Order: sequence, then structure tokens, then C-alpha cells
Amino acid sequence: MSVPNQFYEYVDQHKSDFIDRLAKAVAIPSVSGDASYREHVFEMSRFIVKELEALGVKVRTVDLGKQVLDGQEIQLPPAILGSIGDDPKKKTIQLYAHYDVQPALLSDGWDHEPFKLTHDEKTGRLYGRGSSDDKGPLLGWINVLETHVKLGLELPVNLRFCFEGMEESGSEGLDDLIKDEVGPGKFFDGVDCVCISDNYWLNDRTPCLTYGLRGISYYKVTISGPARDLHSGVFGNTVHEPMTDLILLMSRLVKPNGEILIPGLEQLVAPLTDEEKQRYDVLDYSISDIEQSAGAPVALSEDKSAVLMGRMRYPSLSLHGIEGAFSAPGAKTVIPAKVSGKFSIRLVPNMTPDNVDPLVITYLKAEFAKLNSKNKLEVENLHGGKPWVADPNHWNYVAAKKATETVYKKTPDLTREGGSIPVTLTFAEALGVNVLLLPMGRGDDGAHSTNEKLDVSNYIEGTKLLGTYLWEVAATAPK
Amino acid sequence: MSVPNQFYEYVDQHKSDFIDRLAKAVAIPSVSGDASYREHVFEMSRFIVKELEALGVKVRTVDLGKQVLDGQEIQLPPAILGSIGDDPKKKTIQLYAHYDVQPALLSDGWDHEPFKLTHDEKTGRLYGRGSSDDKGPLLGWINVLETHVKLGLELPVNLRFCFEGMEESGSEGLDDLIKDEVGPGKFFDGVDCVCISDNYWLNDRTPCLTYGLRGISYYKVTISGPARDLHSGVFGNTVHEPMTDLILLMSRLVKPNGEILIPGLEQLVAPLTDEEKQRYDVLDYSISDIEQSAGAPVALSEDKSAVLMGRMRYPSLSLHGIEGAFSAPGAKTVIPAKVSGKFSIRLVPNMTPDNVDPLVITYLKAEFAKLNSKNKLEVENLHGGKPWVADPNHWNYVAAKKATETVYKKTPDLTREGGSIPVTLTFAEALGVNVLLLPMGRGDDGAHSTNEKLDVSNYIEGTKLLGTYLWEVAATAPK
Repeated sequence: MSVPNQFYEYVDQHKSDFIDRLAKAVAIPSVSGDASYREHVFEMSRFIVKELEALGVKVRTVDLGKQVLDGQEIQLPPAILGSIGDDPKKKTIQLYAHYDVQPALLSDGWDHEPFKLTHDEKTGRLYGRGSSDDKGPLLGWINVLETHVKLGLELPVNLRFCFEGMEESGSEGLDDLIKDEVGPGKFFDGVDCVCISDNYWLNDRTPCLTYGLRGISYYKVTISGPARDLHSGVFGNTVHEPMTDLILLMSRLVKPNGEILIPGLEQLVAPLTDEEKQRYDVLDYSISDIEQSAGAPVALSEDKSAVLMGRMRYPSLSLHGIEGAFSAPGAKTVIPAKVSGKFSIRLVPNMTPDNVDPLVITYLKAEFAKLNSKNKLEVENLHGGKPWVADPNHWNYVAAKKATETVYKKTPDLTREGGSIPVTLTFAEALGVNVLLLPMGRGDDGAHSTNEKLDVSNYIEGTKLLGTYLWEVAATAPK
Repeated sequence: MSVPNQFYEYVDQHKSDFIDRLAKAVAIPSVSGDASYREHVFEMSRFIVKELEALGVKVRTVDLGKQVLDGQEIQLPPAILGSIGDDPKKKTIQLYAHYDVQPALLSDGWDHEPFKLTHDEKTGRLYGRGSSDDKGPLLGWINVLETHVKLGLELPVNLRFCFEGMEESGSEGLDDLIKDEVGPGKFFDGVDCVCISDNYWLNDRTPCLTYGLRGISYYKVTISGPARDLHSGVFGNTVHEPMTDLILLMSRLVKPNGEILIPGLEQLVAPLTDEEKQRYDVLDYSISDIEQSAGAPVALSEDKSAVLMGRMRYPSLSLHGIEGAFSAPGAKTVIPAKVSGKFSIRLVPNMTPDNVDPLVITYLKAEFAKLNSKNKLEVENLHGGKPWVADPNHWNYVAAKKATETVYKKTPDLTREGGSIPVTLTFAEALGVNVLLLPMGRGDDGAHSTNEKLDVSNYIEGTKLLGTYLWEVAATAPK
């Protein structure tokens, strides 16, 4: 049961129709993080519901309640739950994407109006907010559906859709919905695997499948002493200065080479197997790739695998800044009374916020005690999330790999990402099935930046990839 | 030639007139740091000129040119140069004060309208912006003049006034004026000593004379690497993070106990003599004084003299903050691309910005080299000023000491201050004569804070002190 050739022909023939569909979606500025754009997020949900229903999908929109944003209480955009196919002999695949976008203004430095899809024929790029994150991938599934419907082709699997409108704003309400809809007779009942298309290739050349994400634990370390900010002329060298204590504490967290200094953390990291090590060695990646994306030759190592493992399978500790200290341009001679250092640790298996927190807090307290300071220390965990890793040998990945090889004539990179996509872990834990991250866009798409783009080839070949993946699941998964 | 008793009687009898004079001055919001208040600074200058001329002072206002403030080019307030008496047999005393004030809004947390002098009869305090800094002391001289004129008393010395309207905004234009007016036939020709009344007692109990000020050297250390801010999920543990380098560098500048770690600095500090050490031992000061002003028990030592010397005769290094890092509330997972640490060193004899700069820069470069970072370091000195110290055994001080003992029945504390009053050094260097800081207000006046106040007793006894000082100079100074 391989993909009928007419599927590919239809997609190629309807390239400009599919681009038009993306243009319509990009024209709706569905920014979830700004209350004044909220009606457009709803408008976007109606657009998608209409497209799905026109293709025979049974759709239910779920009211996720209200939120307070920019000082006003407003309605959350709905989750869109769709369902097509109920054949017990077929696998049931749960798809996820989001229809909201990051903010964008022409004045931020865009070369084109961000909410007007601009097709640069020379480079073959489609510029616009949401083109790659995540309207292109979401519409990719709709393109696949249309192709099957219009050709009278039966879908090789049962499909379930879960599209949300709050991903760029913390996925408010979604976790509860997912947990509520698990169980006999509920929406997610019978799902065999999950496919999320909301990430990117490692580079701009080679497709990838992503089987891991790092978690995070975010800390705020506060040192306070004086009752008010003091003048450094009057109080310098007479009192314990909170900044002196804080800077010293922060300096004891991580070395310039990235090594974390908190005892016990290293022991929590899952050991590296030969098989896993080899995955990094074969990735299509070079030091110049990372230095190009950072914009400067600042990689921690000249060894490609070491750098990749630093991002993908080892923790990291970044110092983000200090709240309460002087942060403006110019020269102010203040001794700040209360300063809070912010840092986060990216977590990898088998670290969790629960096993990391006590190590961090104990260490900071012990180091602070060594300072013999009369100031006070407080350590808070501001938020946390566990890391996620899936079995990349699962049939879900095998199918995606075959699909990639068919469409791109390339073996996909098998990657883990350094950041977090919290819904991934929610699906994995709530549904208890394998989850696959199958990206459409490239590493240089600039998802949250100015001039976000999606290459036409990624959109069209990506549509083919998603369709082929469904057929490969049907062919590959055990009956 | 001691002070005629009628001088004291007149001052006591005219207490409420003198308070009225202060109320009129406080009612003019002569804020020099805000362009929209500039006309009031001019209004204040006219108020003073009128008062001086009415008492027989020859006044010249000097146009100091223009400045750019809040985006507009505006006229600087004039320097007021006044002169009364030209008797070659008398000493000539140069007086300095300023007629501009810090900003103040009721909404900042004042209990009363800041530009309406409020007399709290219960506590004997006069609340209002500028009451203590520096309109009270400036009017103190005018009260002294009035008393002599009204009583038909001949002044025991020749007086020269230099009152400026830009002290709270960097004394723009004044340095050049002072240097220009030195030399035969110029305004400052023949000046024998300088008396500046623009500082405070060490506490709220004991008058003081101040014979030293620390200087300052303010640094900006910038670490840059990536071309743009990076996501810590994607780049954490893959690139050299500027914050990691900067925090480590800043941690190597000063210890929690205040000890500066820059080699060579300590050797620049003038050795402590027994005579000087004794001055600290006898000061009316306790650890609870400093902890009360800091608002918490955070003194670096339990030894009073050690804490005082930390402020007055040893350098200090304070870490003020970081520009370019995340400084808002909340949790942002950024790796800032370029961060600038700000710190300053308070300088004491024999340190100068010129001999300190190379030590700081060399040390930071050497420490940065140890980090083996691929980021870049830049060190800048944002501004600097030399420390100042006068001979407290000079007749100028002896006269002030006698005057204090006469008026307050107390031996004044002999103090040095931890901050800077740059005009002091300008006078000392340009005129080459002894300079005395003779404060009117108390240590708890809250000069730049909300609820600035001057005690009625400090205003009235302070007026007596200034007058008595003039007579003591005449009696004490060698002919």
C-alpha cells in the first residue's frame, strides 16, 4: 500500500492554490499575546473550521474559558478538535498544530508587510508572520485532506486534529482539555500515535525527525539587605552590598565553557550510549552552521558532535539577567537594596524540576553561607517543565523516515531540540503513545523573528511529506 | 574682636522672618534637571540677586551659555558672583552655595507639597525641597548679611559669593567660569580661603567640619559575542555566553567584605597616620547610626572606626548593575548578545582616575584572558574625578571649630565624606587656597529624598554659626 502517484501530481498541480490558502491564513493577524488582536484569533479559528468541514471533518470547537490579558478579562480562543475516519482496521493518528502567531509589525524591521504573504519568486520564499510557525504546517494537513477528497482517495488512516490558538502564549487551557479528553469514549480514545508539526530542520538542507526536547527549571535568586537603595559614595565599603553577594553567587553556577558547577546535577544525566552518540556524528551539521545562526564565531567547541550534544542531550545553565539593579544606559552610582538574579537550567533525561530544585537550592544556600554576608538570600523556582524523549525506533518514526526518504530522497536527521514544546510532553504523558515531531520548515525560517518565511519547496514538498507519512504509517505499523 | 552679642539677639528675634525667606525660596521650584522647570531656576536667580543687592552686595550674573536637555537647547541658569567689602586689611572669604534643587513630586511619596515649606511645630522641622540642599545654607549667608546691615555692624571680612544654579545637574559651565576668573584683577583675585556650605553632619546630634571627599572612577565593562540575542533552549551550552563571562569578571573585582581585588590599588592609598586614626576614634558615631541610615543591620564591621574609615579614607568598589541583560520582572529565557557591567571605585588620596585606570583595565584584560572565551571585551571609563583633602589644622578650620564651639557648645566632628562635590576640588586647585566644608543640616535631612527637611534649630543656629565663623576668621587668621 504505497502512495498513489496521483497524490503527488495533484499537489504539484495545485501549488498556487495551496499558496493562496496560506496567503489567506497569513492575512489574518491571529496574534494571541495581544488582547487587541483577539478577534483575529477567533477569525482564524473560523477559517480553519470552515476548511476542515468542507473536507468532511467532524469538528467540535472547545471553549477554554477566559484569561486576563493587558488588564482585561477576555475569552480564550477555542481548541479545534476534528475527526475523520473511524475504521477499527486503520491506525488512528492524532495531529497537532496551532493557528495563533507571534506579534509582528512592519516597524520591527520587516522588509514586507508581515500579515501579507509575499512570494519572492527569485528565492522561492514565502514571507509572512505564521508562514512557517505554524500556519504552513497546519494547512499542510488541510492540503493533504483536500488532495484525498478531490481525488476520491480513501485516507489510509483515521485522523484526529487538535489545533489550538494559544501556543505562542503558554497554551493556556490546553493541558486540562487534553487530560479531560483521555479515556473510553473520549476524544483521544483509540489514538495510536501523535504527530506534531511545529518545529524545524536543524539546518536549511536536510529534513529531520525530532525525538527529544529539553525541559527547563527557571530560578530567581534574591539578595536583600538595606531597606532602600543607597548612595555608593556614602555607603561604599561600609555595608554588605547585595550586588556583590549576588554576582559572586551567580559566578559560581557555570563556567565560561558551559560546565555547570552545581554538585549532583551531572549524575542525573542519562549516560550516553554508542547508538545515541552515533546519531550526533552523522547529523548534517557543522560548526559553521551554529556560528552562522549565532552570527559570530563563538561555538564552545570545534567538535560538531560535542556542540550538538551540548544543545540536545546535556543540560545548560544560562544567566539571563538581574532585576532590581541599575540597567539603563549611563552611569548611576547606586547600591541597589534588593537584587534578583535570573537563571535557568535546561533539563535532559533523567533530570526533572523535582530532582534538580533541591540540588540548586542547597548549593546556593551553602555558597551564600561562605560569603559571611549579613544580607538575606531567597531562592525561588519560577517555573519548570520536564524533558521529553521518544523512542526513535518506534514505527511512528520508521514511517516518517520512509516518507522523508520518498519525498526528499534523503535520510532525515534524527534530532533532539534544546528548547521546550510543552504540549509534546502533555500528549506523551496523557495519551501514553509515541509522539513524533515532524517539521515542515527549515532552521533559518526565523519563526519568532522579523522576516519569517517558509520556502515554497518546503510548503509543497512538506505537504507531500505529511501525506506520505500517513500512508507509510498504514504500511509500517503493526496490525 | 569677638562676635557682638546683638548679632545673636537679632537672629533670634528674626527667626520667623528668616523662615519666611526660606519659604519664599522653597516656593520657587528651581529644578535644574528638567527643561520644563528652567524658567523657575532663572526666577530663583533673580530672587537671590534682589536679596543680595538690597543688602549692598555688588552682583554680576554670568551667562554660562546653553545646554541640550530633554532634546531641546536651552539657556543655562547664570552663575551669581557677588562682592562686598574690599578692605586690604581684612581676609577675603569666598562663599559657595547653589540655588537649584533636585526634582520632587508629591506623588513620589512626600507627606506635604514639596514646594511649599511646611513647618512642623511639634518636631521643629521645616519640610520642603531644597530646604536643606541648598537653599537653607545659601539664605543663611543672606541672613548673616542682613543682620550686619540692619545692626549697622561692619563685616569683619571681605566676602565674595559664587552661587550656581546647576549643581544638581553636573555644575555645567561652572568649572570654566572659575578657571577664567582666576588671576590678577579677576573675580577670585585676593581670595584667602573658601567656605562651602553644601553638606551634612555625620549624624543628627553633632556639628561637623568636613575636610575630605572621595573621588570616583566609573567603569563600563562590555562583553559581546553573538550578533543578536539568542534563545537559551537552542543555544544554551553551545556558545560562549556573554553574561557568563561578565558575571565571572565582575565577581573578581570585590569581595563580600568590601576588599577590592584589583592588584596595585591598595598600594596607592595614603598610609594612615596616628593623628588621622584618632580623628575617627573620637567621632560621634556608632554602628547603629550607619545601620539606621541603611535601614538594616548590614554594617561590614562592628568596629566604628573601621566602618568610618571604609567610607572616609579607603576606596570602595560598588557593582551597580548590568545594561543589556534581562532586567524586568518575570522569566525570560534569553541569552543576551551584549552586556555591559557598571561599577565604580571611590577614590582616596593618592588615587586618581589616571593612576587607577590602567590598573583596572590591565586586570580586567588579564582576568578575561583566563576565561578562554571567544567573546570580546571592552572596558571604558565613563567619568572620573579626583579625591580632595584639605589641611584640617589650617586657620580656616580653626576658625570654624571655634565658631561651632561658641554656637553649639560642642567640638565639631572632623569628617571626610564618601561621596564627591566636584566644585570643591575645582576651587582648591584653581584658587590654591584652603577650602572648608561647613554644613548647616543634619545627616538625616534626606537631601535627595522625599520629605527633605531642615530643622529650625539648624537653620537658626546655622545662621549664627556662619556669622560667627566670619568673625572667628578675622580673629584667627594670621595678619
